Amino acid sequence: MSETMQHIVLASRPTGAPTQDNFKLETAPMPEPKDGEVLVRVQYMSLDPYMRGRMDDAKSYAAPVPIGGTLEGGGVGEVISSRSDYLKPGDSVFGMLGWATHAVQPAKMLRKLDPAQAPLTAALGVLGMPGFTGWYGLNALGRPKAGETLVVAAATGPVGSMVGQLARKAGLRVVGIAGGAEKCAMAKDVYGFDDCLDHRAYETARDLRSALKDACPDGIDIYYENVGGKVLEAVLPLMNPHGRIPVCGMISWYDAGALGGDADSKGLTAPAIWRNILVKFLSVNGFIISNHYDQYPEFLSEVAPQVVSGDIKFVEDIAEGLENAPSAFMGMLKGANRGKQIVKVG
Amino acid sequence: MSETMQHIVLASRPTGAPTQDNFKLETAPMPEPKDGEVLVRVQYMSLDPYMRGRMDDAKSYAAPVPIGGTLEGGGVGEVISSRSDYLKPGDSVFGMLGWATHAVQPAKMLRKLDPAQAPLTAALGVLGMPGFTGWYGLNALGRPKAGETLVVAAATGPVGSMVGQLARKAGLRVVGIAGGAEKCAMAKDVYGFDDCLDHRAYETARDLRSALKDACPDGIDIYYENVGGKVLEAVLPLMNPHGRIPVCGMISWYDAGALGGDADSKGLTAPAIWRNILVKFLSVNGFIISNHYDQYPEFLSEVAPQVVSGDIKFVEDIAEGLENAPSAFMGMLKGANRGKQIVKVG
Repeated sequence: MSETMQHIVLASRPTGAPTQDNFKLETAPMPEPKDGEVLVRVQYMSLDPYMRGRMDDAKSYAAPVPIGGTLEGGGVGEVISSRSDYLKPGDSVFGMLGWATHAVQPAKMLRKLDPAQAPLTAALGVLGMPGFTGWYGLNALGRPKAGETLVVAAATGPVGSMVGQLARKAGLRVVGIAGGAEKCAMAKDVYGFDDCLDHRAYETARDLRSALKDACPDGIDIYYENVGGKVLEAVLPLMNPHGRIPVCGMISWYDAGALGGDADSKGLTAPAIWRNILVKFLSVNGFIISNHYDQYPEFLSEVAPQVVSGDIKFVEDIAEGLENAPSAFMGMLKGANRGKQIVKVG
Repeated sequence: MSETMQHIVLASRPTGAPTQDNFKLETAPMPEPKDGEVLVRVQYMSLDPYMRGRMDDAKSYAAPVPIGGTLEGGGVGEVISSRSDYLKPGDSVFGMLGWATHAVQPAKMLRKLDPAQAPLTAALGVLGMPGFTGWYGLNALGRPKAGETLVVAAATGPVGSMVGQLARKAGLRVVGIAGGAEKCAMAKDVYGFDDCLDHRAYETARDLRSALKDACPDGIDIYYENVGGKVLEAVLPLMNPHGRIPVCGMISWYDAGALGGDADSKGLTAPAIWRNILVKFLSVNGFIISNHYDQYPEFLSEVAPQVVSGDIKFVEDIAEGLENAPSAFMGMLKGANRGKQIVKVG
């Protein structure tokens, strides 16, 4: 076994979009598991938009990553040494392994995976946190009804594509928003969206709204929110009475520093948001999926068979090598990925 | 019977705060009831903040009042002639009688009142739409739990005072916000609030927030929203995880024209609202009480006995004469009233 491991630490906090300078690849002694712990060789790690928030020194649901600390994230890997009865060498596991080639974790913090049932990488996307996020937010907070209209942005991402596919199966009209013609074609051809708009083709929220109005002739009943910004500004006035907005992210605003800024959504004011909520009886609910893992088995039993059968599609972008994680992450925040962004580490 | 009646029409649409010029007192021939209708002599009419919204030509849950149209509003009065089997002359009724001395209405649109059970004016406030609004929003959307902390502004108004009293009975810590030391004393001494802050004593949202922080040492679980603006800006960062915000009004923003403005809440941006909803899993629900009258009997059966017994208090401000309704209304929008604002018409 190698005597050292590699990991990526937060070198400095970004102001706005992260740059290469904010990350540093470091070498460290190989950690050793204590009683109840295992050592895992990371095979694939997940890149997710929420990680941008952890890089800021702002109060949130999770503590920020400290300067010099290993960046956090989910990964799948192989147990290579174990001091736990629950896991043995060779077992495949999912856990919060961080941006690293190896990790020591308490065995009880890891979920054992069956590689015969689904590809390991599925645990990072379609059957992992993002897919579960889409399923939970849509069903518990979106409360979809056949015949309604749903709009979701980042439509080809692992959350948006899950939301769209489930909503279509529930009998809703599903309109996606994505960056670029290629992604829009993918939303319709791969994921079966009824329509998809390229937000880059519309300079202002007003232009985007006008196109959305055509794509949603009966208005919008559910806006699954993961981007904020221009899309939210375009969508809000089109919401129908009694509309629902599950809020699971706001990627377009993550770079706005302390989020006091209005970048990309100059026309969207606090009173305008409040007025729409009031006069249309909207139900706006923020959530973080980590509060709802009691429902994960229900998600898995409902969705995993459909993934295996091919009824639910998923697409992955796999970057090679831990050292390329920062550039893949920066690209993802700008929408350079097509599907679930993963890094092949081992 | 007089041959004419008087009513107040919308002479012009206000820009910002309404002025006397926006209203015109007119005389019209006395209307005659058709089959199924009754003629009502209005005794008391209600003044409510929502009426300000109807004066704008903006899309909302209700159509705007047209220029030259009679201003809308609830009132109580006496049936003076009837062409309906349901009501007879002498009956006391509540209905949307408008800003007028007399009104003809279909009998089925009116609610018969029993003057022996509660004073007629209670049907406009504590046992009417405002009291019901407070009860519904608190219970259905606020979901109060003993030990939690609730904040409500316009604390001595007919909605805020109902919310505060019910929340206290449910075992919550209740902190009001009101305009002026007299109202704050009233919130505590009459309505039993644990504390009440005078928003006029704090120039900025930041100052108000700092005082609220002291008054709410365990944070805020429910913010019953009826004002928006500076109070919302002060409250949002103090909300606890899983907090609830029923949104029933935003009086401080009603004068902001198309509500694009930021008057009184410069520091509150769209991203800041969205970020608080996201990272604290807030549940923000707009509502209008007219969608929920199926629960009105439940409200009445629960609350009316407590009003009669004096366990739930109410205060009314009664202006004299239809011609003084505009000035009483303009005063109310500025917070000049102490309790439920009513106009004695007949």
